[in-house]
Amino acid sequence: MEIPEQDAAHMARAVELAGRGHGSTTPNPVVGCVVLDAAGQVAGEGFHAYAGGPHAEVVALAQAGERARGGTAYVTLEPCDHTGRTGPCSLALLEAGVARVVIAVPDPNPKAAGGAARLRAHGVAVTSGVLAEAAERANEEWLTFVRLGRSHVTWKFAATLDGRSAAEDGTSQWITSPEARADVHRLRAASDAVMAGIGTVLADDPQLTARPPRPAGAAGSSGAAGSSGAAGPSGAAGPSGVQKGPLRVVVDPDARTPASARVLDDRAPTLIAVADDVDTGLKADLLRLPRHDAGLDLRALLKELAARQVVSVFLEGGPALAGSFVREGLVDRVVAYVAPALLGSGRAALGTAGVGTIGELHRLTFDEISVIGPDVRLIARPVPTHRQPGEER
Amino acid sequence: MEIPEQDAAHMARAVELAGRGHGSTTPNPVVGCVVLDAAGQVAGEGFHAYAGGPHAEVVALAQAGERARGGTAYVTLEPCDHTGRTGPCSLALLEAGVARVVIAVPDPNPKAAGGAARLRAHGVAVTSGVLAEAAERANEEWLTFVRLGRSHVTWKFAATLDGRSAAEDGTSQWITSPEARADVHRLRAASDAVMAGIGTVLADDPQLTARPPRPAGAAGSSGAAGSSGAAGPSGAAGPSGVQKGPLRVVVDPDARTPASARVLDDRAPTLIAVADDVDTGLKADLLRLPRHDAGLDLRALLKELAARQVVSVFLEGGPALAGSFVREGLVDRVVAYVAPALLGSGRAALGTAGVGTIGELHRLTFDEISVIGPDVRLIARPVPTHRQPGEER
Repeated sequence: MEIPEQDAAHMARAVELAGRGHGSTTPNPVVGCVVLDAAGQVAGEGFHAYAGGPHAEVVALAQAGERARGGTAYVTLEPCDHTGRTGPCSLALLEAGVARVVIAVPDPNPKAAGGAARLRAHGVAVTSGVLAEAAERANEEWLTFVRLGRSHVTWKFAATLDGRSAAEDGTSQWITSPEARADVHRLRAASDAVMAGIGTVLADDPQLTARPPRPAGAAGSSGAAGSSGAAGPSGAAGPSGVQKGPLRVVVDPDARTPASARVLDDRAPTLIAVADDVDTGLKADLLRLPRHDAGLDLRALLKELAARQVVSVFLEGGPALAGSFVREGLVDRVVAYVAPALLGSGRAALGTAGVGTIGELHRLTFDEISVIGPDVRLIARPVPTHRQPGEER
Repeated sequence: MEIPEQDAAHMARAVELAGRGHGSTTPNPVVGCVVLDAAGQVAGEGFHAYAGGPHAEVVALAQAGERARGGTAYVTLEPCDHTGRTGPCSLALLEAGVARVVIAVPDPNPKAAGGAARLRAHGVAVTSGVLAEAAERANEEWLTFVRLGRSHVTWKFAATLDGRSAAEDGTSQWITSPEARADVHRLRAASDAVMAGIGTVLADDPQLTARPPRPAGAAGSSGAAGSSGAAGPSGAAGPSGVQKGPLRVVVDPDARTPASARVLDDRAPTLIAVADDVDTGLKADLLRLPRHDAGLDLRALLKELAARQVVSVFLEGGPALAGSFVREGLVDRVVAYVAPALLGSGRAALGTAGVGTIGELHRLTFDEISVIGPDVRLIARPVPTHRQPGEER
């Protein structure tokens, strides 16, 4: 599709605006919107900042006011056509008199789709698919959640250049830098759940809370012009303010989590995923799941989490659990912090992942390469075309 | 030291010129030179292109001609003061009537040093230490060779993001891309020797020759203005044309290299390093060395290679030999090709390197991060301050 240069530029801005809601809109998508007046001048901008808050289109239209009439709206996701906590955006666009709507990605949510059709039925010119790839990327967690009916999984690891996460004696503090660890806390804070295996809980007794260097909402509140009218804060917690941070999830088939584990403190909610056949007196929120191979049915786990409105999971290991997720094709994004150091022995970052010979290699693509303090952060995603039949995505 | 902006700019250009000789000057350093006339205009440029060819200063002065009189010469390495295959550059600068000489790095070679002193004694203004770090980096192999009396070692490995170089069944072709493999051949071609352990020879039967995508000399011959007057080609082989490519070195304590190994073909010279107590009928150029731990005395190996004018060694594994070099503090540069892929099991890129606990980690710094095809190339060097007492450098 040929995209007029101006359409691409305005949609790029809308994608940028959408990103400002990242990590705080669950279970909603991130959405950005730019409204031009009839003369083609920018009249309003907005993004969806938190679930229950005004949608991006509403924010941008409010800012544009009468200037929206006869104008064009750029929206990163097809405007919703249903009444949820707010009214349908398709109607808001019609009422504002917008003459043309440009959409990046159609809404995969059957409950909310239909916005484009309604707009067209009322004589609005609709263009779809503009900068779809960039908009998909900005919304990847939510799109995975809606399309596959399971939580999106980011597997994070920190390792030396030779791929080791701990020395022979198990010591690992610290391989990566304070800057890298602060970055991890930011990514945790932008996730709905932080997950670890029982091996990591027993070995390291991690707290698994998000402790970002500044409040999680600070980035969001520096938001677009037009968002200042939104009621309530735009932080990850949303306006209710009761959320303590991401849900902590421990994959613990045999319910071996000690009652004294830090992951069971009151700093954040915690869910312990155990086998459905296990007999335990553990005082915790338990999720019972079928066993699968040496662990639990991870696909069932992600579907149960999705049912609890967990859009995004930040998987932090250890190697065995990460290996199981990779083997099952359930890792959607890899965030690797690589330290400029060599160990030569000790714990590998990734455990057995079902690869016996080189043809079974799990292929990814590198999407982002950043320098974080002395370390390098590599973000990679699976190559869709190399997936086996029957695998997801 | 405060460096005048103009000095830094001209020296940066000289460093750039020096780099054009990289890989083809052995056993000489790379050197670049810029000559300004008395008015401060660039009158000549040159670099040292191959051993036996004219020195950088001579090339630049020839281009400048009479314009050098009263002018300034920027040289990346202290001008030599001895007569080798060419006359001393200190004299050439004096004869040309240069009024000022700016030097990046003093010559550590006692045979050649003294150029700055002679120039000063004849009334030339000499400034030293300008852009020394960049000039040291451009000359790192040769400076290691001269200062430590041993070959400089670059350890190269290719691995998945989780640090594995082969799958469980030993298969490894291909983890990295054709682009990355072409880059490896370029680096091999720029080295004096390519080294592997007997394990790699027995497992993979590598040829260990440099097969760069274009002739190794092509980059050099696109050289500086002023180099066109140099006699002979500027390729890695030098004007004699008999060199077939880097020396192949196999570390093989018990002389297990099969007579049929490809590393013993006639495509390049080969040296088999064996233990001095081994009894072998292997028909090959043997280097007998003391045993050390489970292998050979690697420090002795590098000193023997230096005695054979091997300035730079490109170490290609396998993991056990690389681990020994890392443990001994004998790796000067790491070049890691990281593929966007996960294995989870199989051969680790690096074997035991003497680290038992995290405090003994081998710390490096990342100096270059490049995207090569789908892969990432990370270049790292040891952190000098973290080295143990008794270690080199």
